[in-house]
Amino acid sequence: MIRTIASALVALALTLPLAAQEAPDALAPGEIVAAAAPRDWIRIAPEDLLVMTLAPAADGSAREVVIQLMPPPFSQGWIANIRTLARAGWYDGISVNRVQDNYVVQWGDPNHDNPETEGEAKALPEELRAIGARDYTASTLPMTGKFDDLLPRFLERFPDFAEKFPEVRDLSTAEFGSSIRKSLNPDPYAEANLLVEGWPFGYDLKGGKAWPVHCYGMVGVGRGMSPDTGSGAELYTVIGHAPRHLDRNIALVGRVVEGIEHLSSLPRGTGALGFYEDPAQRVPIRSIRVASDLPAAEQPRFEYLSTESESFARYAEARANRRDPFFIVPAGGADICNVPVPVRRVSTE
Amino acid sequence: MIRTIASALVALALTLPLAAQEAPDALAPGEIVAAAAPRDWIRIAPEDLLVMTLAPAADGSAREVVIQLMPPPFSQGWIANIRTLARAGWYDGISVNRVQDNYVVQWGDPNHDNPETEGEAKALPEELRAIGARDYTASTLPMTGKFDDLLPRFLERFPDFAEKFPEVRDLSTAEFGSSIRKSLNPDPYAEANLLVEGWPFGYDLKGGKAWPVHCYGMVGVGRGMSPDTGSGAELYTVIGHAPRHLDRNIALVGRVVEGIEHLSSLPRGTGALGFYEDPAQRVPIRSIRVASDLPAAEQPRFEYLSTESESFARYAEARANRRDPFFIVPAGGADICNVPVPVRRVSTE
Repeated sequence: MIRTIASALVALALTLPLAAQEAPDALAPGEIVAAAAPRDWIRIAPEDLLVMTLAPAADGSAREVVIQLMPPPFSQGWIANIRTLARAGWYDGISVNRVQDNYVVQWGDPNHDNPETEGEAKALPEELRAIGARDYTASTLPMTGKFDDLLPRFLERFPDFAEKFPEVRDLSTAEFGSSIRKSLNPDPYAEANLLVEGWPFGYDLKGGKAWPVHCYGMVGVGRGMSPDTGSGAELYTVIGHAPRHLDRNIALVGRVVEGIEHLSSLPRGTGALGFYEDPAQRVPIRSIRVASDLPAAEQPRFEYLSTESESFARYAEARANRRDPFFIVPAGGADICNVPVPVRRVSTE
Repeated sequence: MIRTIASALVALALTLPLAAQEAPDALAPGEIVAAAAPRDWIRIAPEDLLVMTLAPAADGSAREVVIQLMPPPFSQGWIANIRTLARAGWYDGISVNRVQDNYVVQWGDPNHDNPETEGEAKALPEELRAIGARDYTASTLPMTGKFDDLLPRFLERFPDFAEKFPEVRDLSTAEFGSSIRKSLNPDPYAEANLLVEGWPFGYDLKGGKAWPVHCYGMVGVGRGMSPDTGSGAELYTVIGHAPRHLDRNIALVGRVVEGIEHLSSLPRGTGALGFYEDPAQRVPIRSIRVASDLPAAEQPRFEYLSTESESFARYAEARANRRDPFFIVPAGGADICNVPVPVRRVSTE
């Protein structure tokens, strides 16, 4: 599913002198998103949306969380398990058991891998697959291959880049210039960090590996000490500064696209790792459904701003270089988790 | 206050092959902190602690937040104002008015700079100082000077480094090696990011500038469009992924060292920017006091783990390279906001 080089455009946007940079009335990132053309928005398949319904809040208001599952080639073993669990009704009646400040909210069977169990663990469907550490990275897509392959493809796809930075044509790939280096958005965690087809990825360029990264709101699979112990029955989402040390150590399977406030504002657990010490503190989960299994009229519809669109490139550039009136010093860059992919709910009509 | 080169030790720890790297029973970062010697902990002066008491929670439990103010040379104009406001009792009776998910919690006078005012703004003490954008960075300390000065001082201070990486002796400062480059922990926001005397700083090495960075829990001064409109009467703390684009655009004055969960778990505001639309949603602040103004027996006592200590270096290295049993792939680095400075409450006896 993932186009290879298109991803680079987005990263480039963090450094290229786009027209917006000179505009005296520079737009804020949100204004750029609001002005994006309809063609820049991509519908999320209902098969890739989970609707999680929590018990109502104390004031009786509904609490619904919508999660987008990641497309191939990432984490598909776990994602198949998650759809199986949802379709078996297995998640209905589990609960949010752990809320650790500046880290994660985690939900699952409170009698499985929980310090405060008080009964038998719920039996899992038999058809779940066991998936191991090999699936925490993908060696195929996106932007596969050795770094030596990158520059020529980069230039072929983006002739404008070579026009603006003619020096790159003379560089060997081993000594690629600081402009290209910066456009790959390196950080302490990865040589390159790029937004591709709606998702944030880290890259080991020499090894030709890619992996999804733990940004705020990303959803992953809880596991025990052994890498193959996570089935998808226990899930968590990030509610703090990106815990990138978890990248490649736990499977990411998606992200919250609506309703994260119902999780991030829950009281923090006072037990070890933020587990609730009193079972009464757990938040019941009424159900988790795959949106495509709901009656058509009840299926939520969401779109994301194509990370390959010109609008997204301008948005990402503006996130990295704020010029709207409040700002004095543009940062000159943005880490990948500070460029959240815009997602919007659209009418079902 | 800030020693210059000591800071580099901490950054180095992210890459140096410390003994811990080879240990089969590698300690988790928290275990390293727990084992730190008493001499590695530094007392926070009571003059630098603010105690903020919120109205009790719905269940009647107390809600207290403790904030550590930043030492010189950073933000002292605003910090002087904050002490003045606290000592005038000005903060007593204000409220938390804004809670924006993955961003900030903000408190102040709801009738000042708030979309939902319903009365006169509270008069400010006359002796407050106006402070402008020039104070968002410091050009003196820490680690002042041009980057050309850095390497020789670095080697003088850390002969071990040169022993381990002898190639650095031959490098001109203009072409310093990738090891040193990595040890400065560059990221998309700054050429260097170092923890110095307990605080996270970004550095413009060529310009000889330093500034505190917006990590989770840092506390800053709300302002209007003009950079000199923030007095210290309106404050915020970060409750999401580090919004580093705010660095050098707003004054940071400290960080929450205890009780941030009382702010981060508040219901999100549904108005623009997360402001509460209904005044009844605001959380009353009973008082904010400078700890040194409290009776001695009521003064909370806190210590932070010296960022210049060997224990901290080992902790930072372990944050960047997790080898405790859960982990499969050490990240190989950590962004500065993912190395929070350990702080602990100590007995008042």
